[in-house]
Amino acid sequence: MVKNHDVFHALFNPRSVAVIGASENPLKMGHQCLLSLSGGAFPGPIYPIHPQAKEILGMRAYAGLSDVPGEVDLVILAIPASEVIPALQSCRAKGVRGAVIITAGFREVEDAQGEQLQKDMALVASRGGIKIIGPNTFGLVNVHARLNASFTPVFSRLKPGPISLVGQSGGVSHIITYQAINEGVGLSKVVGLGNRCHVDFADLLPFLEKDPETRCIILFIESQDDPRDLISAVKKVTRKKAVVAMKAGRYPESWKAARSHTGSMAGRYGLYEASLKQAGAIVVQDPGELLDVAKILTILRPPSGRNVAVMSFQAGPGILLTDAVVEHGLRMACFSPPTQEQLNRLLPPLTIRTNPVDIAFAQNESLFEESLKLILNDENVDALVIFLLHHPFMDLRRVIRPVLRQRQLSKKPVILGVNALHGSIHEEVGELETSGIPVYSLPDRTIRALRGLIAYGEMFKKESTLDTAEKSGKVKSS
Amino acid sequence: MVKNHDVFHALFNPRSVAVIGASENPLKMGHQCLLSLSGGAFPGPIYPIHPQAKEILGMRAYAGLSDVPGEVDLVILAIPASEVIPALQSCRAKGVRGAVIITAGFREVEDAQGEQLQKDMALVASRGGIKIIGPNTFGLVNVHARLNASFTPVFSRLKPGPISLVGQSGGVSHIITYQAINEGVGLSKVVGLGNRCHVDFADLLPFLEKDPETRCIILFIESQDDPRDLISAVKKVTRKKAVVAMKAGRYPESWKAARSHTGSMAGRYGLYEASLKQAGAIVVQDPGELLDVAKILTILRPPSGRNVAVMSFQAGPGILLTDAVVEHGLRMACFSPPTQEQLNRLLPPLTIRTNPVDIAFAQNESLFEESLKLILNDENVDALVIFLLHHPFMDLRRVIRPVLRQRQLSKKPVILGVNALHGSIHEEVGELETSGIPVYSLPDRTIRALRGLIAYGEMFKKESTLDTAEKSGKVKSS
Repeated sequence: MVKNHDVFHALFNPRSVAVIGASENPLKMGHQCLLSLSGGAFPGPIYPIHPQAKEILGMRAYAGLSDVPGEVDLVILAIPASEVIPALQSCRAKGVRGAVIITAGFREVEDAQGEQLQKDMALVASRGGIKIIGPNTFGLVNVHARLNASFTPVFSRLKPGPISLVGQSGGVSHIITYQAINEGVGLSKVVGLGNRCHVDFADLLPFLEKDPETRCIILFIESQDDPRDLISAVKKVTRKKAVVAMKAGRYPESWKAARSHTGSMAGRYGLYEASLKQAGAIVVQDPGELLDVAKILTILRPPSGRNVAVMSFQAGPGILLTDAVVEHGLRMACFSPPTQEQLNRLLPPLTIRTNPVDIAFAQNESLFEESLKLILNDENVDALVIFLLHHPFMDLRRVIRPVLRQRQLSKKPVILGVNALHGSIHEEVGELETSGIPVYSLPDRTIRALRGLIAYGEMFKKESTLDTAEKSGKVKSS
Repeated sequence: MVKNHDVFHALFNPRSVAVIGASENPLKMGHQCLLSLSGGAFPGPIYPIHPQAKEILGMRAYAGLSDVPGEVDLVILAIPASEVIPALQSCRAKGVRGAVIITAGFREVEDAQGEQLQKDMALVASRGGIKIIGPNTFGLVNVHARLNASFTPVFSRLKPGPISLVGQSGGVSHIITYQAINEGVGLSKVVGLGNRCHVDFADLLPFLEKDPETRCIILFIESQDDPRDLISAVKKVTRKKAVVAMKAGRYPESWKAARSHTGSMAGRYGLYEASLKQAGAIVVQDPGELLDVAKILTILRPPSGRNVAVMSFQAGPGILLTDAVVEHGLRMACFSPPTQEQLNRLLPPLTIRTNPVDIAFAQNESLFEESLKLILNDENVDALVIFLLHHPFMDLRRVIRPVLRQRQLSKKPVILGVNALHGSIHEEVGELETSGIPVYSLPDRTIRALRGLIAYGEMFKKESTLDTAEKSGKVKSS
């Protein structure tokens, strides 16, 4: 197998892309792939390949790769399985660097014929120095390069960011990517491994380790015939970059579905989890948490301990946050006597001034800021969570301003929980997250993200993803 | 205390509403309340009350209640605490039936003065036959009557439906109501209890029990000085209607915040949970699950057992669904030999044809329908979950049509999981849910909702919320 950083670089940063199997029929994957490329405003030339058509979706079409006038770096194949080997040979002749094979129908890898076909594909590709993603993949995306080489046009709505996702399941990769679009979380690379005939986790991780646009890597794992390559690749990459991983198939009922027939470690969830953790990954059990934890790891430095202070503008969510802190193994901070004394002076007598602090009556901006400052500077507090409901009569800026000011003066992580109608606070969330304050919509999600950050800090006492990034000069300290 | 169905009926169905404390200033609650009423298209007259203003938000204003020409059934008070008693006296003089007291500042109920004020309020109200909601509440909503008597104008975007919510926390009630708006789940009544000076859970439950617009009741509980009234009211109402409840404050760290100083049962989560369950409520531990379970209870009859079949258009989510089935105490159905044989004939050889069934290759509508029919009719299957990613090349109608057809022919619950971008499938979800197929966005949420339905069925062997509704002639069988 060619393991070459430059070839992966070319795969994610092609100068031009051809779609073999391009179609005018919107129910065809080749059609959607073309839409993805053009809708994503890919800056280079896009070449639809079709035996007869002169034009598809307004783009000039070509009968074969050899008819394309310029160079072709990346090819997307959305054609029947039987046509893939000849197509790959034409790729080789054209000097193509990477191929995304959408085509399914190899899935039955246990079938001798399907398995042989995949081996042949890998061989043709390796000989030609071509990297294959797939087959049976939705494709790949490099948001920074405006490359949406997938069959999902809405992926073009992704914002660029520092998180890369490598998924063994196309379905779950979509769930995570849809979440990123819904919530405005920026991504870097998204890769659907598909049948992994040529490129698996262990091949991509060394590339992502050196990729300056990636600071945190999400892995969604179904099963591996031999997980040792994966584990040792994770171990190596976690020295440089944060990895958040999820392994599906936690019970015997689901091992079967995860296609682990070997009876070896492949099916044993507990062994995967332990090995991944030992290799330095943060392991979660919910696809939503993958992105939530990845986000916090790219925004905040881990706190030095597990003592959490909670300030809530509404009492009920404050209680839910407290429940979540305890449930997820963190601790409610106990304010030091001087802090408590000053809080007692600042806040109205019969509101809750111990942790969780009820700040419903501190809607006055300076009173809120003073409480915030006191709590953040308390030596017994390692991290601060602030929660509020978005509401028209509560000017969100009166909360954001003090939080941003105090955040600048403290090294402790501050996390904001804001519950709102879909899409109503995208702008504010963007501003906060750029300024080092991650935002989550629900009490439980807020605390689970913080738990991930703390787990990361406990694993890597010295370095944070931000330190690594600062060294490479890509991100300024927040 | 006046416990009178008619007075509550008048509270939720007023012919006219006045806002005492109406204001042109958008940062004032009185302003937002007016916006709620007018934006919600309340059909009766709305009277802003303001000492000087002639007009507020384009509505004619009055100096006092006595100046209002017609009758006033409901009054919203958004004025300082010190002005509440005189305002209530003017309500009494005007023959007002209900008062929503937004005003906070009574919160410190342990303060002798605040406590006395609340007692006085309750007394004035009771003497005048007025029901008070609050003080310190966001208000109440009756979606069916287009009454948004709250300080949150966006609540006017709620769709009418059969679920009522009574919340002790305004913050958490907002989280749940925002979720209902985001996801298009229909609600009936929404009530924020606030400081409960006059109306508590136990007072509202008998009204909701008889309310033909309510089939399922959500309770969010912080703490009660003496929970016995609550528990016995729940016990009574669950004979007729489904109740889904959540009690905040599961740990000693949060009891304090839930203001349970009595050391009695008030603070003991375990006792609350056990008593609520014994009283027939479904108890959940996540605010999102309150609405998810309430929704399924109003759409489906409980299955006769815990054996779940899973059909997934993508393998990864199928594994996550299987994990969730086992984690939440349900069982993966084992197909009977004839079903398995026929599935083996129908579906391609090397896809997963045991449970969870991988139907990626059954995108042909009739093949999908035939598999669906086989599985649904298997005696070993009690409930069926179907999952798919929303995608432009996968015409959702090709899935919806067979599901709706087969759903008509079977008594077993069918639940659809569809992951999509926010807002992209509202119409399809509405159609499915009207036709008896609840829809959820994520594997875990889908299975937790089903777990709630099964728990309900195990508690009430004979009746379902639909049977009750059918008897009252409000809902036709689905």
